[in-house]
Parts: sequence; structure tokens; C-alpha cells
Amino acid sequence: MIDIKDRVRNKALQAKIVSAEQAAASIKPGMNIGASGFTPAGYPKAVPLALAERMKQENFTVNLWTGASVGQELDGALAEAKGIAKRLPYQTNDSIRKAINNGTIQYTDLHLSHVAQMSRYGFLGGKVDVAIIEACAITEEGQIVPTTSLGNSASFVQSADFVIVEINTSQPLELEGMHDVYVPLDPPHRQPIPLVKADDRIGTPYIPCDPEKIAYIVPCDIKDDVRPLAAIDDDARAMTGHLIQFLKQEIEAGRMPENLLPLQSGVGSVANAVVAGLADSDFENLTVYTEVIQDGMFDLIDAGKLTFASGTSITPSPDGLKRLYDNIGEYRKKIILRPQEVANSPEVARRIGVIAMNTAIEFDIFGHVNSTHIMGTKMMNGIGGSGDFARNAYLTFFFTNSIAKKGDISSVVPMCSHFDHTEHDVDVFITERGVADVRGLSPKERARVIINNCAHPDYQPMLLDYLDRAEKATGYAHTPHLMNEALSWHTRFLETGSMKIK
Amino acid sequence: MIDIKDRVRNKALQAKIVSAEQAAASIKPGMNIGASGFTPAGYPKAVPLALAERMKQENFTVNLWTGASVGQELDGALAEAKGIAKRLPYQTNDSIRKAINNGTIQYTDLHLSHVAQMSRYGFLGGKVDVAIIEACAITEEGQIVPTTSLGNSASFVQSADFVIVEINTSQPLELEGMHDVYVPLDPPHRQPIPLVKADDRIGTPYIPCDPEKIAYIVPCDIKDDVRPLAAIDDDARAMTGHLIQFLKQEIEAGRMPENLLPLQSGVGSVANAVVAGLADSDFENLTVYTEVIQDGMFDLIDAGKLTFASGTSITPSPDGLKRLYDNIGEYRKKIILRPQEVANSPEVARRIGVIAMNTAIEFDIFGHVNSTHIMGTKMMNGIGGSGDFARNAYLTFFFTNSIAKKGDISSVVPMCSHFDHTEHDVDVFITERGVADVRGLSPKERARVIINNCAHPDYQPMLLDYLDRAEKATGYAHTPHLMNEALSWHTRFLETGSMKIK
Repeated sequence: MIDIKDRVRNKALQAKIVSAEQAAASIKPGMNIGASGFTPAGYPKAVPLALAERMKQENFTVNLWTGASVGQELDGALAEAKGIAKRLPYQTNDSIRKAINNGTIQYTDLHLSHVAQMSRYGFLGGKVDVAIIEACAITEEGQIVPTTSLGNSASFVQSADFVIVEINTSQPLELEGMHDVYVPLDPPHRQPIPLVKADDRIGTPYIPCDPEKIAYIVPCDIKDDVRPLAAIDDDARAMTGHLIQFLKQEIEAGRMPENLLPLQSGVGSVANAVVAGLADSDFENLTVYTEVIQDGMFDLIDAGKLTFASGTSITPSPDGLKRLYDNIGEYRKKIILRPQEVANSPEVARRIGVIAMNTAIEFDIFGHVNSTHIMGTKMMNGIGGSGDFARNAYLTFFFTNSIAKKGDISSVVPMCSHFDHTEHDVDVFITERGVADVRGLSPKERARVIINNCAHPDYQPMLLDYLDRAEKATGYAHTPHLMNEALSWHTRFLETGSMKIK
Repeated sequence: MIDIKDRVRNKALQAKIVSAEQAAASIKPGMNIGASGFTPAGYPKAVPLALAERMKQENFTVNLWTGASVGQELDGALAEAKGIAKRLPYQTNDSIRKAINNGTIQYTDLHLSHVAQMSRYGFLGGKVDVAIIEACAITEEGQIVPTTSLGNSASFVQSADFVIVEINTSQPLELEGMHDVYVPLDPPHRQPIPLVKADDRIGTPYIPCDPEKIAYIVPCDIKDDVRPLAAIDDDARAMTGHLIQFLKQEIEAGRMPENLLPLQSGVGSVANAVVAGLADSDFENLTVYTEVIQDGMFDLIDAGKLTFASGTSITPSPDGLKRLYDNIGEYRKKIILRPQEVANSPEVARRIGVIAMNTAIEFDIFGHVNSTHIMGTKMMNGIGGSGDFARNAYLTFFFTNSIAKKGDISSVVPMCSHFDHTEHDVDVFITERGVADVRGLSPKERARVIINNCAHPDYQPMLLDYLDRAEKATGYAHTPHLMNEALSWHTRFLETGSMKIK
């Protein structure tokens, strides 16, 4: 059994060690809570569970601001206690999602790089009242050593009136030193973020914090609620194959260095499959500059192909977490965790020239992307960091299977039912059918490449027919659409259960 | 009469002075032409007119890449000679617009900050074959002194196989020294853009060019094709009033410095009215970091309220041009022109924290913006720099009149017919009716603020009715929409000439 006092190295702060219930009692109705956590990694667990219990008794709500999604003990418990009024900037929890889509939780879906500065600017409805931060340890000087994610923690600590630190003894102390904390000044005083390579260190290995501001320290030993990744299927393998072939062509054409440029990859199974697939390729000396470090990155490190990975969170599968902890001495040499306003910084993404690889729910024939809404209305997760990277990357890919629901949904549609990334922000689309390279193309040129290379054969004739009729009806306008038919595929699905014409 | 040799200070280069026809004869069918020019300012005139004459005889096309829109002698003449196959990244010319919307010119509408790097990366279909650059002069060392815009000229010169320089003797030599030319390295070698204030100088006052690369020098005395600005009307005055009041409230709330932050303003009459309106306000020590310097900026300088303006182009009205030339000694102390990849840089915009003010064609109740397409299909101008600034600003405004076509069009619609800026990228909407501050709001919260504060009373009940019915039909989904009705307002306008229900 680890003694939590060993991890609170500042002796004076040891007097602030309390139970989760005592800390949770300090939270007042209507407060803005800024919590650590980015994906189910590094989020507070004990205090939220205690807070949820209190909410069930006392019936009140707070606003919950985090890095991104978090685990069940925070998002799930608070949502199930009907304790969240407003949630931002990202979520993946079933209970929260349900409440967002029945109007009981207001959800603000933000670019992940924007959250910390918008909260400092006071644009999100007040400032952070309390920061609740999961930590490995508190240093002799009273600084906070984060765990498996960094997210917005440093900025939330800076802004908060008071701070609750959860010392999680399930998190290994070897995480100490893997973080690089840099919080930019705000305009008009901001300076360039002095980062030009994935492995540059520009900040401190801990979250700076006035020890006076730490009000409570709470012990916790609940592990990160990590989830298994779906098995890599044939479609994911096909997409990976297309990507690798495409990148090789770019190198041959002189448009890409031989060791590529820093890779950014979204979260989830397809993204993980793509990264893992690179481990079997002949690319070498790769670097990663991304949000979330998943199992695929460990494969790349083990294969000797990855020289360095920068992220804001480590979110492996349960197997991957074991692998990380068992080999943390080696992995920590090649992994750094940054605040998400640096990890997702448009400035840095454009400067170092990331290769952005993200997943779409659907895209349309003219190259717009829906990343967030099922049939235009129901929120799935959120835009996350996809916009930070897609807009600013050297080269931007979006992936999706060409069909969903056993073919009743085409992921390539005449017009998206919701728009997160516009035609101006995407270079290449990849489905299991193939690759649509739309760089430099006009909308009408893009449409034929996307339909022919990426759409499923069941839907290709319908898409071409739509395009032909829209061109004729509009006299070959710049973006030919039939306003009375553009969303008819979604309407048909909602009415009949299929986008196909029966 | 000015002797062109006085302006070609490098003696060896004087041997390259030829007629426009001789220079135009060097251009081969299918070439990618990279031309100077950003708005009708600083674009080549004599060579394009000669090229257009050749095209009429020889019947061939080229691809035309510029900074942004250019004047009639380039866009108009080449389009009318049916000489353009592909055009990018922006235009405002009637002949080009017509050809884009009847399928005879392919148009690639790009974020203006992306153009130079995408052309260097080779992403736009080959590289620049020939750069045609309007200049005031060529220095002793053979470097090129630009005129009233900088745009993508420096990058095009760097990439081009050969360069044609038009020495325009109608442009005053006092423009020399007003430019600051900085072309970033490309990944993986790019460094931070070392600019932290609007008046920082980070480059050279001329376009660096190997004199060997200059193939032809052509004299020209045709003036920039500047246009009068529309008179400032009551609606523009009302929007300006709303803006000023809103900014004052932000200062009072401690969310904005007293002298504001650097102002970015789109092109056109509303934008110009807003900037001019600031001259009558009590704000002081303002700075501008924008694309285009219009008459309103001269008003601000004359009123002693503007300490510095950075742009990539000076595009006054004819009266404003006279005013500039008559007082250039004074104005040049307070104005700098930069390449558009610096003027529009997301990195710089976010660092210095611009206040972005741009114009929408329409926006929807959930806060998405259409900047480019009339009724979802016909290209108006292009996205220009609005995306560069809107996404990265400290505070982002979009302006539009609440109605158009004498009330038959509502500029606030259930769903946009085209999407250029998403809900993730806008803070505040302003029409003549009022201000919708949507920072931190969920879509359903945004919708009521936008409808109540910005929509025209003729359309408010229809919008609220749509929202109510969509909420009920979707069970209060995150973004309530009726897929079969979302675009019905546009359909109705196309069918009946009005969005109103008869």
C-alpha cells in the first residue's frame, strides 16, 4: 500500500489531505469546474464520485470543463446524478450524449486548442472557479506532477480560485518528467511558441501552482477507465494500404520528405489501425505530433520506426496500459505530454507541417466534412482537435468507411447534414474503396474524383445522377446543388431506414 | 514623362526592357502564371492586355494564380479572351464570375494564407512557371520594389522559372520602403514568424530575386483600377453603432484592453463603414492588422486614432488614392505591406489577438456562415482571408444586413445553403437589428439569441416556428433540424422569388 504522504513531498501541504467527501463539499452549485483529463486518461475520479453522491442528495448542477472526454467516474457519474448544466469541450460518454441530445445538458463543442484561452479570456461564461486535477505527486515546492494527460490542467490551475489535487497512487511515479508545461501569455503580450520539433522542451515538467491555492488534497487509487480497441478489420487495413501507397507517391514526386512529416492521428480504431499499419511499412525515423498516444504508437516505437511522439494524453487499451507501465522506462524516452493548446496549436501544426489524419462521419461530393452529427441533429462526440489540425496541416486526410449500417447509409452524400470542416480544409479523402486527392481542384472536379474513387458502388450511380442533374439545373454553377434534394438522402434514411431508393 | 530607365537602377537589367507584346510572347499555353496583385492594387496590366490579344488570335488558355482579386486588365481581359482554364484563389470580376458559374473556368477557392505555401508544396497542379510582377522600381542589386500590394508576389518570384517585371510609372516611388518581405521556410525547416506587433519589421523592403531570373522588363503607366465605395447607409451606421457599444462593454468587463486589439476588417462597403465609424468613437491608439487598407483607415490616421496599420494591399477609392498619393509622406510612416502569408497568418493572428470583422452572405440560427455562395450554388467572390482571421482571432464578428432583395431574402436562415465558417469559429453576429453574442453557448441557446437579436421581424416568427418544430421532432437533439425543411427557404426563393410564404 502506497502512503499518499510519500507523494506529497511538500510537508506543509500534507496538512491539506482530506477525504473525497470533504473536498467535494467545497463545490458550490453553479460553479465552473475545470478538471484534468483528456480521453479516459488523467481525470479526477474520487472527488467527482463523491460530488455525484452529494448531487443526488442536494439536487444541484455545475458546469464541467475538461481537456476532452473523460471516464465514467467523472462524466458518467455527474451526468447520471443530473449534475451537469453545461459541458465543454468534448465527450464520448453514453449518459452525457443522451442528455445532450434530449436537451437536459447544454453542450458547447469547441476546437480543443481554443478552450484554455477562451476560458482565460472569460468567454465561456465566467472563469474557472475550482480546478480538480489528478496528479502523480506534489513536489517539494508544491508544484503539481500530472498523470496520463495534461489537457487544459495548467491553464485551469492558473485561472482557478482554488485547486483540488487528487493524488492517484495507481499512476506510476515514472510519469514524472514526461510532461512539458507551457502556458502562453495572452494578447497583446503573447510571444511565439518556441517549438520547432516534436521533441523540443519549452516548459516545466510540472504544473506551476502557488501552494496556497491548493485547498484540498485527496487520495485516489482508481485506475484510468481505458477501453479495448476494436480489432483491425479489412476496411481499416484497406484504408491503411491506400494511405501508405499515397504517401510513397508523394515522396517520389518530391512533395514529402522520406521520413514523412510529424504524424497526427485522431482517436479511435480506424486511426489506431492506420498508425499501427505504418509499423509494417518501410518508413523510418517517423515522428508523431498529435493529441492522443494510442497502442499503435507503441507498435511504432517497438518496431524502431518512431523517434519521438508528442501528445497531450496517453490512452492505450487495457493491454496497452499494461505494456506502457511494464516498459515505461523505455517509452518515456520517446514520449512527451504537452498542454492541448500547444499539442493542438495551429501555429505549431502549420510550422512543423503535420500530416493530419482524422475520421469523418460523412463527407459530401464537394469535399465538406461532418465529424460530429448523426443525420444532422444528434451529437456523437464533438469536433475535438480535428479542426486544429485539418486546417493547419501540411497535408490533411479524412478517413471513413464508404458505407455504414450494412449499406443503408452512404458516407459519401450529395450534401453533408452538418458541417465541421469545409471544402477549404481537406486535401485527401480515403475510404476502403480508394483515395480522392482533391488538392487544387474546383468543386465540380472534386465531385467526380470523390464519387469515382471513394463512394460505394451501390451509391455511385445515384451520386453521379445527382451531380449531373444539379449541373444542368444550375447551368453548371460553381457548386451545383439541387436545394430541394440536397438533404433528401438523410430524409429518406430517417423515413425508410435506408438511403437507398426502394 | 518618366523615363523607365530611371526606375531600373541595375544597369545590366536595362537591356531586358521590352514591349508588353514581346514579354507576352514568352508565355506558353497551359502555363501556371503567378501574378502580383491583391484587390485592384499592384497587379500587372500591360503584359496581361497583350497576352489577352494573343489569346484571341491563338486560342489558348493558362492558369492564373494571384494574391486575391485583381483589376479588369488582368482578370477581365483574360476571361473575356477565354484565356483562363483555372483561376485561384479569389476574384471579384464580373467576366470571371460568370465563367465560374457556367463551368468554363474552374475556380479553386482557397484560404488566402494557404496559397503561397500550397504553390511551393506543389499541391496546386505543378509549380509557378512565370511570375508577372508589377513594380515601382528595380534596385541597383536587381531586387524588385513592389507597388500597392504584396500578396503572393515574393513566393511566386521565388518559385517561378522566369520573371516578368512591369515597371508601373503611375505608382509613386515613395512606395519604396513600405514593404516588409518575409517568406517562411517550408516544413520541416520552418521557424516561428518573429512578429509580435503590427509594426514589427521582419524582412526586406524589396522582393529578393536573382537578376538572372528576370527575363523581361516592361514599361506600363496604367493606374490601379480602383473603384468608388458605396455611400455609408443607415444599416451600416447601425451595425457600426452596435459594434462600438459591444466593444465598450467588453472593455468594461475587463475582457479587452482600452485601446482594443489589432483590428482586421474585410473588404467592401460595410467593412469600410465600420472602420470609418471608429474614427468618430473615443477609442485611441488603435492598431490595424489586416489584408486591405481602405479609405476608412486613412480617416482613422487623420483623426489621430490609429498608431499603425499592417496589410498586404492598399485599395482606396479613387478619392482615397488621390488622398494617399498627396500625403504619402505622412501615411507611409504608419503603413506597412506584408506578404499575405504573413498578413493573414493564423500564427500571427492568434498571437497578437486580432479583432476579426468580416461580412457574411447569410448565417444560420446555429451560427454557421456562408461567405461565398448565392443560394448555395453560385459563387460570389470567394472565402478570401475571412477563414484565416475568423478561426484565429481573439474575437470574431460577422456582419450582414438582416434582409436582402427588399426583404425577399432573410440573411438569417434555418440552415445555410453553403458553409464557409462553422459554428466553432464565430463569437458575435451583428446585423442592423442588433448583436448576438454566442460565445460559450450551445446550439439551441445560440439559436434563440441569433433569432431574437439579429433576424428581421418579418422572419423572426418563421425562424422560431422552425426551431420549435425541429426541437420537438428531434426530441431536443443537440442541433435540432428538419432535414426535409432545412433548405426550404432557399428552395422557396428559387421557385417564387421570395423566402416569405405567400
